Amino acid sequence: MSVPPAGFEVLPVDGIGEVRPGDDLAALITTAAPWLVDGDILVVTSKIVSKAEGQLVDVPLEEPAREAAREAVLRAETSRVVARRGATQIVQTHHGFVLASAGIDASNVEPTRLVLLPKDPDASARWLRDELRERFGLHVAVIVTDTMGRPWRMGLTDVAIGAAGIDALTDYRGVLDVHGNELQLTQMAVVDELAAAADLVKGKTGQVPVAVVRGLPIRPDGHGQGAAPLIRGADADLFSLGTAEAVAKGLRTAAAIRDTPPLTFPELPAPVAAAERAERLLLVWAPAGDLRRAMEAGMEVQRIRAGLAADGVASEWLEADQVDLSGVDIPEGGMPLGVLAVGRGSLPSL
Amino acid sequence: MSVPPAGFEVLPVDGIGEVRPGDDLAALITTAAPWLVDGDILVVTSKIVSKAEGQLVDVPLEEPAREAAREAVLRAETSRVVARRGATQIVQTHHGFVLASAGIDASNVEPTRLVLLPKDPDASARWLRDELRERFGLHVAVIVTDTMGRPWRMGLTDVAIGAAGIDALTDYRGVLDVHGNELQLTQMAVVDELAAAADLVKGKTGQVPVAVVRGLPIRPDGHGQGAAPLIRGADADLFSLGTAEAVAKGLRTAAAIRDTPPLTFPELPAPVAAAERAERLLLVWAPAGDLRRAMEAGMEVQRIRAGLAADGVASEWLEADQVDLSGVDIPEGGMPLGVLAVGRGSLPSL
Repeated sequence: MSVPPAGFEVLPVDGIGEVRPGDDLAALITTAAPWLVDGDILVVTSKIVSKAEGQLVDVPLEEPAREAAREAVLRAETSRVVARRGATQIVQTHHGFVLASAGIDASNVEPTRLVLLPKDPDASARWLRDELRERFGLHVAVIVTDTMGRPWRMGLTDVAIGAAGIDALTDYRGVLDVHGNELQLTQMAVVDELAAAADLVKGKTGQVPVAVVRGLPIRPDGHGQGAAPLIRGADADLFSLGTAEAVAKGLRTAAAIRDTPPLTFPELPAPVAAAERAERLLLVWAPAGDLRRAMEAGMEVQRIRAGLAADGVASEWLEADQVDLSGVDIPEGGMPLGVLAVGRGSLPSL
Repeated sequence: MSVPPAGFEVLPVDGIGEVRPGDDLAALITTAAPWLVDGDILVVTSKIVSKAEGQLVDVPLEEPAREAAREAVLRAETSRVVARRGATQIVQTHHGFVLASAGIDASNVEPTRLVLLPKDPDASARWLRDELRERFGLHVAVIVTDTMGRPWRMGLTDVAIGAAGIDALTDYRGVLDVHGNELQLTQMAVVDELAAAADLVKGKTGQVPVAVVRGLPIRPDGHGQGAAPLIRGADADLFSLGTAEAVAKGLRTAAAIRDTPPLTFPELPAPVAAAERAERLLLVWAPAGDLRRAMEAGMEVQRIRAGLAADGVASEWLEADQVDLSGVDIPEGGMPLGVLAVGRGSLPSL
């Protein structure tokens, strides 16, 4: 059996223990890993960065106060809601990352606290890298990671949310393969692959929040641009919204198609025969003989129904002669055209 | 400097060279890596698996025949189009993976050929694992990888599309952290993280299509369920469609909201004054005095406009008195209500 060629190693950093606000991460890491050498890549779970930086929020232990507090924290960390289903909220954070619950985590922390992401993970990575160089004479790269779900595939993977001393992307644009073809792929997310590799020794129960990758190149100098180049803006993203949210946006767009003035219809005060179980009943009418207003009423009804469908509310159109309108006030000179029963019927499916 | 604790290594397999249909992958790999040992995880780029299995398609060198052939191959590999923008098509393959261009690749192959994904990458992984055990006495795990883009983040990463002898997901459900909290995350996509780690030594120019991960656990026996558990069905996916496709679906849904019978409107044969530059002009009318039909016409116009918007076609409503209808045949007994100018105006934006 011959010797394999040089590759790289991924080494766990054991014994860091619980990290508390104000703790000196550089000292904790170098004490736990006195074997660090120049050129190592430190891959640090964002949770211990957040804890050291005091990015913690106290929350009540009991429901419903706990959930309300969590919701408030989530809103504060969110720049844009990307998708929702049940209790799951996938949002874009102020950093620009798209993460379930904005990366807010209740694990590996006292039950009365939530851990937020670091305020500026690239700055955290730069700070730690500088500390290690200035105080410990170590020239390393630093990656700050979080755990992320992804569309289309089950299971989570670790990704980079901050970096210093290593470039986030490897650029293959213009590179030729051995056949002389220009490579179709463009950029590999190297720091995400490093984050994923490091997770394989870190695990998720909190005992190993740091791993070291040894044997891969780092920047010879300078912090580089951090993890920011990994952020794909919503405009450049084919998946900037959840499917349900985008379908709703399409319905709202349909409700906004108009070149005629808006009309409002009076609400019937009480259920009328043949229209039970509706949440609301709108009386649709037009002035007698006014074909144009009748047509505009039809347009408006259709817009209202699209808007209701966007909110997941079904509606049903009831012809004037299907509904018992006796006792209903019809505006003077008006002819009833029908009744829109809100909350009845079923949504169209495609 | 003390000694680091045991982690794992990622080792490149150099010297495999060009793989051709019918090549014996097990022999190629063991010859290039005589240093393989029991417990190693072989991470194999799908391209060499495809080449050995003859998953190649001949395509013309010259456009437009080349692009037409590529389109035909893509259609054959696609079970569902997820998103499109310009030349980019993200599709779900027959395997269930969501990949740009169905994973079809024109790099690292002769310019006259395209490489498809292996027909059944889990079966390929099992086959290779069995060969290595039966013929070479090696008890290893095998992961077959492809390179994949993802929403929200720039850059590509390698992921697993086939596996044998290792479980795709690590299940943390019910596991407690040191604080006694149940972990919020559920399952880590271990084989994707291994694929990502291996890519860091494989690179993309084709010279290193295999890497070995040494020092992490594999299944003691059995192939396991392969990479199939990584596939998230469209029903369970908050991002089963591209945003633009889902918005269009919402508009089509709006166009399908109806409880009244469909109406069709006659097309005006030629441009009329004040409605130039329209692609088509529909004359919207109702029988004189028929308020109900006028209202239904309004509903139908609104549906037509939503359907047009779903296809990215704007429309504009022109009142009957805005348009010069002299010389236009109005159906007998009909009153013109207006003209729908298809392809004029602008789409509503939200």
